[in-house]
Amino acid sequence: MEFGELTPETVPFIGQAAYIQLELFENLARAVTTAPNLADKEGVSVMARVTLKKHHRLIAELRSLDQEPASVMAPFAPAIDAFRIATQGSDWYELLLTSHITAGILDEFFISVSGSLPVNVGPRLAAIIGKNAGADAVVDALRTAIAEDPTRASRLAMWGRRLVGDTLLVARSALRESNAHAPVEERIEPVFTELIAAHTRRMDQLGLTA
Amino acid sequence: MEFGELTPETVPFIGQAAYIQLELFENLARAVTTAPNLADKEGVSVMARVTLKKHHRLIAELRSLDQEPASVMAPFAPAIDAFRIATQGSDWYELLLTSHITAGILDEFFISVSGSLPVNVGPRLAAIIGKNAGADAVVDALRTAIAEDPTRASRLAMWGRRLVGDTLLVARSALRESNAHAPVEERIEPVFTELIAAHTRRMDQLGLTA
Repeated sequence: MEFGELTPETVPFIGQAAYIQLELFENLARAVTTAPNLADKEGVSVMARVTLKKHHRLIAELRSLDQEPASVMAPFAPAIDAFRIATQGSDWYELLLTSHITAGILDEFFISVSGSLPVNVGPRLAAIIGKNAGADAVVDALRTAIAEDPTRASRLAMWGRRLVGDTLLVARSALRESNAHAPVEERIEPVFTELIAAHTRRMDQLGLTA
Repeated sequence: MEFGELTPETVPFIGQAAYIQLELFENLARAVTTAPNLADKEGVSVMARVTLKKHHRLIAELRSLDQEPASVMAPFAPAIDAFRIATQGSDWYELLLTSHITAGILDEFFISVSGSLPVNVGPRLAAIIGKNAGADAVVDALRTAIAEDPTRASRLAMWGRRLVGDTLLVARSALRESNAHAPVEERIEPVFTELIAAHTRRMDQLGLTA
């Protein structure tokens, strides 16, 4: 997927990606603390650690470009903080679904955009962001919860649908405004179509209707 | 330091050490989320990740002994959860001091006890627990906070003194009851003296009176 003139500048791109991983980590850390039992706590902590490692690797990329990470990330904090707060959900299972679904969509999106960055940095960023998120235990916990109480399925399916819109807006905000005649939305539509297809597969895996 | 007959069984010892690292991580994760600025958030997150990694390595040790980590940790959860709640502090700086002080004391204590475990496991556990906790940024944040507002020094010094008692009780609970004539307390006194000396150095480094 080529983003052409929509491709963001490298440094802010890394800053936004890094801050997103940090916020994903914060959600996961809260899910660790509030897990209903020790086995789930344990399982979710794996994804928390992988996510924090992605964040630290992106931070290291900024440092290697002589950038102060906090300054580069700061402009993205208000919108992404608001996103995290809006997507916390009303219980542990919604929070867990948020972690899985938003990480899935945003990781894929940032990997996709990495492909349009200069070759001396893009592939490395894609490798960092694309590292397996360790979501297996999260998926297992959600599947078990849905099997135990079928009323959860419809509630979580609805929550999953709500998450997509907010998450795509965060993705959208990573792209530059275009000066071209073709509207930005038209150019990113095929990317979003792919992201939604992958989201549907993720929901299917949980037995949820996307 | 030899603990002799006070030396705990290996499996519960690892379980308690693992659960303590998990609780230390939960405190640090909360400190990441509630940090007053991005640079501090960033700095504290390093210690959070190292601590979670220690937890995961201890869990891997339990698995390698064919033990289910959640079952082995469960008996220690109530007391350590209560400890974490009692030591959260009333603001971010107290929470940060808790993370630094309790990790310092408990890591040293568990390393010390590891020395009395069988040689096929003790040294490996000591190496896991003894890995540098990445507390540099935590120390810097505390020193800066104390320099900015000297009234913090006396409040944090008092908080530091309060932490020692609770933390030593957690350490104490890791040792077996002794059947010998000499009371347990007498045998562990030299260990506690060493832990308190190290604690005093840690407080000194922050410019706080222990």
